[in-house]
Amino acid sequence: MKFTEQLAAAWQKNNSLLCVGLDPDPAKFPAHLKEQPDAIFRFCAEIADATADLACAFKPQIAYFAARRAEDQLEALIAHIHDRHPGVPVILDAKRGDIGSTAEQYAIEAFERYQADAVTVNPYMGRDSVEPWLAYKDKGVILLCRTSNPGGSDLQFQKVGAGDTALYELVAQMVARDWNPEGKYTGQLGLVVGATFPGEIARVRQIVGDLPLLVPGIGAQGGDIEATVTAGKTATGSGLMINSSRAILYAGKGEDYAAAARQVALQTRDAINRWR
Amino acid sequence: MKFTEQLAAAWQKNNSLLCVGLDPDPAKFPAHLKEQPDAIFRFCAEIADATADLACAFKPQIAYFAARRAEDQLEALIAHIHDRHPGVPVILDAKRGDIGSTAEQYAIEAFERYQADAVTVNPYMGRDSVEPWLAYKDKGVILLCRTSNPGGSDLQFQKVGAGDTALYELVAQMVARDWNPEGKYTGQLGLVVGATFPGEIARVRQIVGDLPLLVPGIGAQGGDIEATVTAGKTATGSGLMINSSRAILYAGKGEDYAAAARQVALQTRDAINRWR
Repeated sequence: MKFTEQLAAAWQKNNSLLCVGLDPDPAKFPAHLKEQPDAIFRFCAEIADATADLACAFKPQIAYFAARRAEDQLEALIAHIHDRHPGVPVILDAKRGDIGSTAEQYAIEAFERYQADAVTVNPYMGRDSVEPWLAYKDKGVILLCRTSNPGGSDLQFQKVGAGDTALYELVAQMVARDWNPEGKYTGQLGLVVGATFPGEIARVRQIVGDLPLLVPGIGAQGGDIEATVTAGKTATGSGLMINSSRAILYAGKGEDYAAAARQVALQTRDAINRWR
Repeated sequence: MKFTEQLAAAWQKNNSLLCVGLDPDPAKFPAHLKEQPDAIFRFCAEIADATADLACAFKPQIAYFAARRAEDQLEALIAHIHDRHPGVPVILDAKRGDIGSTAEQYAIEAFERYQADAVTVNPYMGRDSVEPWLAYKDKGVILLCRTSNPGGSDLQFQKVGAGDTALYELVAQMVARDWNPEGKYTGQLGLVVGATFPGEIARVRQIVGDLPLLVPGIGAQGGDIEATVTAGKTATGSGLMINSSRAILYAGKGEDYAAAARQVALQTRDAINRWR
């Protein structure tokens, strides 16, 4: 099954556009977990178990695992999600980007080692740096387009060419058209567009048709849910993976942190659904 | 000691601008290594031992390790180089790039876990995605500017703003000026500029003064040594880390592969030095 078909099934089954970001920071873990050798796995797995029926995807951020030599816990976590919650795809947030022969190695890392269903990729090195990822026909490749951080504008908001096109718009055009000749990779491609810029989400939606958009930046980063959904939804009221990480993960500080996470995930899912 | 001071000392001590890229592909290893459990470490360590007096830096590419669950061998390799060949810096080729809180985790991965002396970073997410790396005052941060692959032009060669500036030139300007206010990060910053475009190496050199340039693309990727050195050298005949990976690593197929690698490294170093 193509990644976007898997995603569409999760949108429908869980009535949710919420992507739960798994950025595990042990300094913020509840006290009872801190001394456990597999605390990172346990923390994330409990969050996943508590929110799987409310989410359209999970998005572990690999840096949080790699900084702590916890690659084995990331493998175990993704296997756990696939085993317990089939139908909720896992997006490995890795933002890799390299020339073809090296991109092949990164694709092995993401898709074969970690068994991720999709991965985030940086477009700066161009089309041939993306193609090795697209060779995996059932996997998703979600290209950075417009990012939600302050410095995102440094490059992405530059006007390119003779007209009034910003670089992020060009990336959207390239991904939707030039890098997808004759729709060959339809069902595999997506874009990252930050929630802090609703006008730009709307512009990207206009360019890319129904391509799925991964939208970080609600919650801790301040993006507004109404504006995000209104700007980014497709005609059928979907097309979005709206990510929330810290607001869900660290909703509670005690042993009931997973229940607290579920409450925030439920509220966030429903807040999103009000504007679909 | 700042990264660029360490690099300058290596340029001088080994009379070399050659960076030896460590992209270990077990399928290409000599037969006697293939069954060893730590073949990746052994292969790279022997290459390093055979070329350390001919190189200004080593550049392990992390994807080749991550694809094979060999993070422990990458740690061991970098520790081995630091132990046996002090003074030859290690650049971790990771091309990471993410928002601040995640970039902090990646910086822990590269600088604390792996103890790399420098890292390659993708500039697409802008200034605040680079700053967490620069908080490590003795470490190098080498930003992608103009890459040697065919698709490199897709974004990097776009004309930005009203004038005739290409995006890669803007990145060079930003890194050398805007992202280095009052020279605060001098000694930490560098740029990646592919050898396949000597005219563009010259243009970047003109923009960035003496900033070190990491130049991949000679050898297997076809860049010409004379043109590269002539275009990229500083007034003192240095300023470059000219990378060669496959041509050195796989120069020999038998048990004497390290000696064969040394021969090619020696020839490459000397070929570079003819044009300094």
